[in-house]
Formats: sequence, C-alpha cells, structure tokens
Amino acid sequence: MTRKRQKIGALNKEHAQHRVELKGWVQRRRDLGGLIFIDLRDRSGVVQIVFNPKVSEESLKVAESVRSEYVLHIEGEVVERDKSTTNPNMQTGEIEIQVDRVDILNEAKNPPFLIQDDTDVAEDIRLKYRYLDLRREPLQQTFKLRHQTTQAIRNYLNEEEFLEMETPMLTKSTPEGARDYLVPSRVHPGEFYALPQSPQLFKQLLMISGFEKYYQFARCFRDEDLRADRQPEFTQIDIETSFMTSDDIIEMTEEMMQKVMKDVKGMKIELPFRRMRYDEAMERFGSDKPDTRFGLELVTVSDVVNESDFKVFRDAISNGGKVSAINVKGKASQFSRKDLDTLTDFTKVYGAKGLAWLKVEDGELKGPIAKFFNEQVSSSLKSRLHAEDGDVLLFVADKIKVVHESLGALRLKLGKELGMIDNEKFDFLWITDWPLFEYDEQLNDYSAAHHPFTMPVEEDIDKLDENPGEVRAQAYDLVLNGYELGGGSLRIYKKEIQDKMFKVLGFSKEEAEDQFGFLLEALEYGAPPHGGIALGVDRFVMLLSGRSNLRDTILFPKTASASCLLTEAPGKVGEAQLEELNLQINKQKKG
Amino acid sequence: MTRKRQKIGALNKEHAQHRVELKGWVQRRRDLGGLIFIDLRDRSGVVQIVFNPKVSEESLKVAESVRSEYVLHIEGEVVERDKSTTNPNMQTGEIEIQVDRVDILNEAKNPPFLIQDDTDVAEDIRLKYRYLDLRREPLQQTFKLRHQTTQAIRNYLNEEEFLEMETPMLTKSTPEGARDYLVPSRVHPGEFYALPQSPQLFKQLLMISGFEKYYQFARCFRDEDLRADRQPEFTQIDIETSFMTSDDIIEMTEEMMQKVMKDVKGMKIELPFRRMRYDEAMERFGSDKPDTRFGLELVTVSDVVNESDFKVFRDAISNGGKVSAINVKGKASQFSRKDLDTLTDFTKVYGAKGLAWLKVEDGELKGPIAKFFNEQVSSSLKSRLHAEDGDVLLFVADKIKVVHESLGALRLKLGKELGMIDNEKFDFLWITDWPLFEYDEQLNDYSAAHHPFTMPVEEDIDKLDENPGEVRAQAYDLVLNGYELGGGSLRIYKKEIQDKMFKVLGFSKEEAEDQFGFLLEALEYGAPPHGGIALGVDRFVMLLSGRSNLRDTILFPKTASASCLLTEAPGKVGEAQLEELNLQINKQKKG
Repeated sequence: MTRKRQKIGALNKEHAQHRVELKGWVQRRRDLGGLIFIDLRDRSGVVQIVFNPKVSEESLKVAESVRSEYVLHIEGEVVERDKSTTNPNMQTGEIEIQVDRVDILNEAKNPPFLIQDDTDVAEDIRLKYRYLDLRREPLQQTFKLRHQTTQAIRNYLNEEEFLEMETPMLTKSTPEGARDYLVPSRVHPGEFYALPQSPQLFKQLLMISGFEKYYQFARCFRDEDLRADRQPEFTQIDIETSFMTSDDIIEMTEEMMQKVMKDVKGMKIELPFRRMRYDEAMERFGSDKPDTRFGLELVTVSDVVNESDFKVFRDAISNGGKVSAINVKGKASQFSRKDLDTLTDFTKVYGAKGLAWLKVEDGELKGPIAKFFNEQVSSSLKSRLHAEDGDVLLFVADKIKVVHESLGALRLKLGKELGMIDNEKFDFLWITDWPLFEYDEQLNDYSAAHHPFTMPVEEDIDKLDENPGEVRAQAYDLVLNGYELGGGSLRIYKKEIQDKMFKVLGFSKEEAEDQFGFLLEALEYGAPPHGGIALGVDRFVMLLSGRSNLRDTILFPKTASASCLLTEAPGKVGEAQLEELNLQINKQKKG
Repeated sequence: MTRKRQKIGALNKEHAQHRVELKGWVQRRRDLGGLIFIDLRDRSGVVQIVFNPKVSEESLKVAESVRSEYVLHIEGEVVERDKSTTNPNMQTGEIEIQVDRVDILNEAKNPPFLIQDDTDVAEDIRLKYRYLDLRREPLQQTFKLRHQTTQAIRNYLNEEEFLEMETPMLTKSTPEGARDYLVPSRVHPGEFYALPQSPQLFKQLLMISGFEKYYQFARCFRDEDLRADRQPEFTQIDIETSFMTSDDIIEMTEEMMQKVMKDVKGMKIELPFRRMRYDEAMERFGSDKPDTRFGLELVTVSDVVNESDFKVFRDAISNGGKVSAINVKGKASQFSRKDLDTLTDFTKVYGAKGLAWLKVEDGELKGPIAKFFNEQVSSSLKSRLHAEDGDVLLFVADKIKVVHESLGALRLKLGKELGMIDNEKFDFLWITDWPLFEYDEQLNDYSAAHHPFTMPVEEDIDKLDENPGEVRAQAYDLVLNGYELGGGSLRIYKKEIQDKMFKVLGFSKEEAEDQFGFLLEALEYGAPPHGGIALGVDRFVMLLSGRSNLRDTILFPKTASASCLLTEAPGKVGEAQLEELNLQINKQKKG
C-alpha cells in the first residue's frame, strides 16, 4: 500500500530505529570519507539520507550515479544523529536515514538553475522551466497558501449558505471596459464568442433566477496591454446576493477577510475596517487605493497660499486647480538640492509642472520661494502642515488630478525609501461614495466609473438626466496596503434606471437593446434588489505571501507580451483549422 | 440588519404569534371573499400570506395590484391555520402570515410560462428565459445538489492533503483528440491560443513540479458536433498524484464517491466497486460502459452455432466475426413477429445485417431458423443460454464490433422497455485492462485509446515496437449506471517511452518536438511516476439528481448548435475588433 506515504518533513527523533520507505528528489549530494550523503526532498520537507558501504555496498554503488533532481525510492533505518552533526537549520536535522535499498525512479539532466530558495536567474529562464522553478520552496509555499486562502473563503461562504455556481466561459462580446478575447465559432461562420471579463451579467441573472446567494472563483480575461501586476487571465472571488444592503455586503466581506487572516496567517484583525470617502482618499492620499500603513499625508493649502505673493500657486488656483503639500517630518537635512531636483523630475512623470519646497529652520521657512510668503501666510502654512524645525515641505500646484496623482506617487516613493512602511501590517480600508461616472474632458462624454450596472445613490437618481457628474454610486472598493483588492456595488434592478444609465453613457436605444437586451428584458420579470463584490485572488495571495510579483502567485503565468514561455503559446495553427472557422489572416502584418 | 433574513421555508407553528419580515416572489395570488391570498416564495420555500382589510386596508390595496413573480417585502404576524385549512402538501402549510405592511420591491411582466415544478414548455423558450426556468423548484434543487456534490468532493480531497490549483485557459493548440476552440492573439498577429480540452499536460507538469497531489474543477472545451449529452464547455474534477499505483488511485476515488453518496444522497455504498476487464465488458454487455443494474447479458455462441447448418452464422464466424445472443427470459409470448421486425430494424442502425431469433416452446427451439439446428446443437445452445420454455433468443452474427454495438444497444433498449432497470440504484463499476491503442482499419493506423500520455502495462512495453495492438494500458474508467463518469491512467514518465508512443501514433520526431517538446523536455528533469483521474461533474450531477438532460445541470447551457439562446452568443463583432486581431472573415460562406 503506497497511498499513505511517509512524509519526509514529518520525520523526527521519535522515528529512530524505525524502518521507513521514502520517495523524493535529490536536493544535493555530498561524498565524504567513502560515504555518500544526499538531501532527499518531497513536498513536505527534506531529510539527509546516508549511503554507507557497511550498510549496503550495492546501494552505495547506485548512489554514486545519482545527480541532483534524480527521483529516488529508498528504504532504510532512521537513526539519531550525534549531537555534533545535528543540523538546527533543518526540520529533520536531528536524524538521518541509513539506506539499505535504493531504486532510481527517474533520472534528471543537470537543471539550468539550482532548486534553492533564492535565485537570481533571469525570469524568462525560470518561466521556460517553470516546472523546476515551482519546485523551489518559496513557490511551493505560495501555492499552499493560495489553496488555504481559497478554502478559507469557501468555508466562510458555505457556512453563510452561499451556493458555488459556474457561469459560461463562451459568452457574448460586449463593449464594457477592456478589450475582449474572442473565440471564433465554427458552427456559425463569421460569429464569435467572447471570454468573460467578469461574470457580471451572469451573476445578476442568477439573482433574477432566485438563487439569492452566489459565489464562484471565476476566471476572467482581459486583452489589455500588460503591466507588471496584470495578467491576461486572472481569478476573482465573485460574490452576488439578493436583498442585502451595501452595509450587509461590506460586513460580510469583512468577516470573510477576518477568517482568511486567521486561517492563513494566524492573525486576528479588528472589525469593522475603516471606511473613507473617495473624495477624502484623493485629498489626503492622492489615490483611490491609499496605502494607509504610514502617514506622510497630502494637505490642501490652496486657501493659505492664495494669500501669498507666489504667482505660480495663485495662478494654479485661479485656473481651477489646487495646491497641496506633504510635510516630510525631520528630514530637511537629508534632502540636498540635488535630491529635491530628483523628486521634481519624478513628479513630472505624473504631469506636474514642478515641485516647490520649503525647509523649516529656527522657526522660519527657508528656500527659493520663501520670499513670497509674508509672516502671516508663513505662520498659517506652518500651522496647517504642523511644520516644525527640521521638516521639509513639498508642494505641487496644478490641476486637481495632477496634484493628487503626482503627490500621491511621491508619497508612496518617500514612504518606501524612508522605511516608513511596516511590511508585517495588513491594513484594510473601504473606499466609499464613489462617483457613478467619470467625465472625459477631451471626448466630452461620461463613462461608468465602475460598470454600467452600478446602482446610483437613491437620492441622486433624479440628477441622472441633468447632472450625471454629481451622481454618487452605491459602490465600495476594498483596499489592502495600497492595492485595490476588489470592489462591488449594489446593481440597478429596475429597467427604467438601467435605460437612463445607458442613455447617459451614450448608447442609443438600439445599441442598448442589441448588446444588453437580455438583461433589460430580465429586469422586467421580477428582478430582486441585488448587489455583490469581486476580489482579485491572485493579488490577495501576493499580499498574503509577501511576494512582490503577481506572476509568483499564478502557476503558469504569461509574460508582458501575453506569451507562455513554457508551452510557447500562442502559436501558429494549421490552414485547415482556419478554413473550418472561415477565417483568413491578413497578409500585410507579420506575426 | 437585513443580512440574516427570515427564511420562508423555515417558518412553522413555533413562529405563531411572532412578527416576521419576509422578502420573496409571488408564486400565485387568489382573491377570496374580500381577502387576498398570496403564496410567497424565496430560495428556501413557500408560505401563504394573507391580506385582510381588517388587518390593513392599505396593504390589501397594494396587494390588489400584485401579479405573479412580483418581488415583495412584507411584514406581518405568523398565525396558526385552522385544522380545516392546513395544507399538508406545503412545508409551511400549518401557518400563514397576516400582512400589515407591504412594499413592492419590483414588478414583473406576465411570464411566458408558469414557474412550476412540471412544465411542457418547449426547451428553446425555457432557454431564452433561463432566469425564469431556473426559478423552478426542480432546477433550484439540482443546483443545490451540484453545490453539495462539489463541496463533498473538495472536502474529501482537502482531507487527503490535495492542493486545489488553477491551470491556464489560454493554452497551446495541440492536435490530441477533439477539435480545439481557438483564441486569436492580438499581440502576436496570426497566432492563436487554444482553450484546453483538459488540463492533462499541465497537471502532469504540476507533478513534475513536485506538488504530488493536485485537483481542480476544470472547465474543458471541445468544439465537437454536439449530441444530447455533450456541451461545448463542461466541467471535470481533475485529479493527479505522484508515486501512487493504479490501485491507490482507484481506492481513493472509491472513497471519494462513497463520501459524495453519503453527503449528497444519504446513501451508504459498498466498497470496493466491482472491476471488469474491457474485453469482458464488451463480450457480456456489448459496451465499454455497461449498465449493470440489470442482466440480459450478451452470450457468445460462435463455437456452438459453428456446428449448425446455418450458413449465415458460420460465414460470419469464418470471416473473423462472431455470433452472440441475448436471452429475453419468459417474454416469448410478448414478442410478435412485427415486434421482432422492429427490433431487427433497430439493430440495423448499428450496422447489423439482421437479427435472428428463436423461441423456446415445449423444450424445442421454434422459429424460421430453427431448422438449421440439429438436436445436439439445439441442446448445447439452450444450455449455453440457459434457455427454457417461454424464452426468446435474439442473435446477431457479424463483425465483432457490430455484434457488440448492436446487441449492446438492443440490450439497453429492452432493459428500459421491459422495466428491468431499478432507477433508485447507483451501480458503480471500474473498467480495466484497456488496450493502449485503437486500430483504424481504413486508415491503417493506430490512435491512442485514451490519450498519448497513458502508461503501458510494464510487461507490454517491449511490444510497443512490434505489436502495438497487443499493448495494454494502465488505465481505468469509472462507469455509473451505463454512463462513463470518467477515467484515468498512470502516465508515461520516461522520455524514451513517450518517444516510442509518439512514433506508434505516427508522429515524426519533428512533429512530436514541435507540439509536445516542452513535455518531452520536462520528462528529462526528474519526472516522478504519476497518474490520476478525471470525472465529469455535469454528468455525475445529472445522475445524482435523477435528471435525463445534461442541460439541466448547467446554469446557462448551449443548444445543439452551440448557441446561447439567452444572450445570443456567439454574435457578430465589429470590423475594428477583427482588424486588431489581423483577421478577415472569408466571404464565400454565410453565417
């Protein structure tokens, strides 16, 4: 019976004098004084096995041919090591196995990189040999943690009587948000399915179907240009409920997070999480996903500096912009003029025209722009910014969006560089009171801030026709340590509101009907009030496991050009396959 | 706090005199003697609510406007019904709610069909309004059962220390088995991803990665012409393990099934399941997925009838074919000549040239062909078939494949029509000792009976070069009530065997390298012995819930032409989208 195998990692002194049978990989081999020592590894851990000619001449002979990553099946006796040879860095370091029987189950070529915790091997090599990369302990641990995380979420939701349900992958292409991945239909030539960007409409249909509580670990697809923290396919825990309020959904999500933190990290986190209005988050942190593990907040000083003689500041304000500042406490002496120039260049990436600065010395503001501030303004400014001797004050005066984005990014950069962030901390935060629409000045039109199915705040519904920009959404995002974990909302469940929503978004009646007719029709057959949330599993696992790369949390990730270096997908397909799909590849471009 | 809502189905006499707040759908409304009675439904059940002018004039007024499938929010008092008005067919039939407050949460148009247990509405209407169809109790129950089934499987596998892991959906197109669904790449013009037919290679790579125990509820895609029990996308519970034997995997699967049957059906099933060799299944049941809930077995009589004077039988045998028979016990009088002609026509669909028959009367064989059988042959035949007075014997003489398929199908048809099948029974069966290859006479080549990664039986490996047709696979299929639930095998983990396998299958070295190079390479870096199994979840749920249509187990299924009648997928996409993908639709065909 091989099913209940002895786990290598579970071996200890209590097994001394017992015979064991082990299967695993050769982590490393050392030859020493006529003996061969091998570290044998399985999923559970590593143990030292010893080949001794006095125990088995034959086994030693086999061991001589063994190399790293060979797969072995051994038998032998567990013996306690001498005190002098125990290895405290190894879980099984107090024992070793005297091998008397060995089979080589499989051989291994010399691997292109060592299977060890730390590696500086180029990522493309690691991705090409992903099956070797995945043998490394930190990745093994990450995927165990991923398993624990999803099971903790499941256990919570099952306990709350949610049903896990599967929605289709071959769906209809709709122009919401990002670009769809398309799948040509063979049976219907010239037509296409789309892979889902999220199961949004299906989960709403499930509420209309009366299931009341749905969840799914949903694979989602977006054909976007990839950044470091994006993948063409990703997984979200997708939740939808009927008859719940925003507060209900928020409370439930908090309990779920509390359970995950307890089950996976052994941490007790306090409920409820803090909540912050979107406007406040932008003003204080310059971000809709603020990292609240440290201060260094943005402070609006428009009203104060508007009294100064500094034209640059006053012009920014009179042009509809604002002036905000960050007070870097006690660091004045650390910032040379060159350092400050570097920070100025950094803010320019975010569109800022410049970064002004002041230092506080002997109770006075110092620096090139200090002369524009009379005593009264200086005093107000110090008071507003809680500025004291040794502080350095950093200002951006610009359009509101630019001020927030540039100072928000600068805040994060300084927080990291000045070591102000506690990496052991998990700081959850809700962002609430989102606007329903985003306004694009150049295109002069509105787009949905979340998605077109988000319910407006009841008392703002009347403004949909005249002042859509002022309509708030019944939406909430969950932020963890400066990352958006996900978000949700109540959904529109009345056809007339959904009709209005599409109108504001610039859909003609025909377009709305053509693309979302089935939803509009479903809303007319007894749709319950409903809402939900979706959280990014890959990103959550990244934060829980303390990794910095989303690719470390996905077993077989794609590169920034959406390729799999292991299988070499995507790839060419045969002419016959294209013929069947009634498709041709355009000649002008080359793959 | 609306989160912990009162469940309608949980209301009973113990709630009498309590106030309750309920939300749900109007199942039906009756007006009677100035009162209005409504059956209010939520996920958990149905309760009668009463609008009485003496309780609330205002509520009664609202109730007058209410129609079927309206969504209501009511408050009122639970009252015990008179003995005379209790409804024993209703879980909550001993009580009703006296409503004193009502809100219409949403209205509903008159639904295109009634939301009731039984419906004879055409399936295309039900699929177009799937969200209404899903409100019906039998479908609600099916998806609850589906949830319970997947959780039972998960709980078992978690207990066994499996890790749930996610493999990619955007993968490489490989020509194994069925047709791939393709996904054009925008970043790599002219190249395509494929949606996985199964995660076969990825789960093998996970074993090579050292994870040892993997599972996934995997969405799989096959662009095949659909039959009643096929869908373009389906879900399988996909399991892979390292270092286990076939017997280990079989035993583990049995324990898992036992747990599902206990958790979901409250049934204790006996272990181990029966095992049957592939050859025996074909010979005795004419099928590799026999329904073993009833007898009516096929019996080979070639040796007996070869001694007869019936040339048709003897020719079939001398041409390499065989003769088999089914004895339909005691039914001779029920089969008229016309009935037997109908059965003959039925077998012709399966390629049989005819169906011969004999009846047993007064110890003698009777019928048109009886004259060809002398006393000795008759006696042997009766003995072989345990034939007695009143029995009817049905013969097919043909190529082996035709005999098995036609009599196998006839057996199933007769079993059903004669009421021989116990529908309450769950009869699990393993089919073992599969051939590794199937031989196609017309193409004169071998294809993989399961897939090209199946491990041959050790002692047959030498035959790979000379006699591939004789090589047995280390494979096992699990059959339930005549349906293939799924199957598995040990996998090839040595490169030299995989190379040989591809050679038998007609791959050139270059083709093998081009399509499966990454696997062949991975096998060289310390691949452990591994194997697994995959079971069809949709089909399993269909059998567990006693439904006859696979579409009833999938929330949003596709039709036989792979369309979604609700969302109208697949559909046309814009020129710009095609342009970005560098594709053109051929003009000659029409969608």
